[in-house]
Amino acid sequence: MNPYLAAFLDQFTEFSPEERALLGKHLIVNTFEKGTYLVKEGDQISACFFVLNGCLRAYKLVDGQEKTTEFYFENEAAVFYSTVSTPSSAELYLVAAENTVCIVGADTDASDLYSQLPALEKVTRVMMEQDFGKTQARLTHFITSSPEERYMEIMNNRKHLLQRIPQHQIASYIGVTPESLSRIRKRLLVQ
Amino acid sequence: MNPYLAAFLDQFTEFSPEERALLGKHLIVNTFEKGTYLVKEGDQISACFFVLNGCLRAYKLVDGQEKTTEFYFENEAAVFYSTVSTPSSAELYLVAAENTVCIVGADTDASDLYSQLPALEKVTRVMMEQDFGKTQARLTHFITSSPEERYMEIMNNRKHLLQRIPQHQIASYIGVTPESLSRIRKRLLVQ
Repeated sequence: MNPYLAAFLDQFTEFSPEERALLGKHLIVNTFEKGTYLVKEGDQISACFFVLNGCLRAYKLVDGQEKTTEFYFENEAAVFYSTVSTPSSAELYLVAAENTVCIVGADTDASDLYSQLPALEKVTRVMMEQDFGKTQARLTHFITSSPEERYMEIMNNRKHLLQRIPQHQIASYIGVTPESLSRIRKRLLVQ
Repeated sequence: MNPYLAAFLDQFTEFSPEERALLGKHLIVNTFEKGTYLVKEGDQISACFFVLNGCLRAYKLVDGQEKTTEFYFENEAAVFYSTVSTPSSAELYLVAAENTVCIVGADTDASDLYSQLPALEKVTRVMMEQDFGKTQARLTHFITSSPEERYMEIMNNRKHLLQRIPQHQIASYIGVTPESLSRIRKRLLVQ
């Protein structure tokens, strides 16, 4: 079994050793080199990606500029939910921001695995609820805060983002140009 | 059975007449007068609200100002997902923006109902996926668009919002002051 997958499955006490082996056999783990595109705008997506190691970045191309909408780090799932129940084409790009190891799930496999592993339904529901909570929190924060407050939130709670992601990608992620982010950083350093 | 609940359940062919009756018996339907608070900042929330008729508004209080983060109209669920698996106190207010009829769900009831109605698990999962998709789309749009583009998106796709919600609440929802929204509306009328 892939060592990252083994470490991930070890977190779940819900699964018996047999169920763990079944998951290890059925879950597909792929490694994507930094810069590899997993999804491109216009693709018909039917897969979801769960990051075991590394980082994925989602962005939208607006007037030729990349606007980063999300980063997915370890233990986070990159799923475009609007395409899950209604297959449709992607509006975003999804690219490996680092060399990244993922579980690659396709909708077609899922129902089979669910019927063999009833406990999986609850595990994925809880993970989806937690992810949904994070996305809601991010939307609420984005609406109610200034770009400077958004940058401070990252400094305080998600420092790994500053260590692993280039500045210009963080800029669009908090809704400013790279030049504005430089000014924000200078102001914060002076304080 | 509450007529709004009956009309809602009629949408689902997944349920047998007996299951429909069971749902009708167990789901709690409440009517909230316009202006009633369903959740206040600091509350320990364990309930979710599914709008059958009317509208709920979520907002955050920032320096004494209400910043509207979401509206929930018919067939939309107001759930603060970060509190579902990890009970915690609300950061937002949830208020009836109109006289509103809701299904009020408490986590404690849910597991009982799920075990009696296996089909319910799938129905709620699909609804959650669709809601998640909408929230992701809104976050993506908020990050990648200007306030003027956000207002145009509402004009084009969610006109009911303009008909049912006061301007000043729409202003913070698209991330501007009421004065800026007035200027945006004038510019768009001139074009």
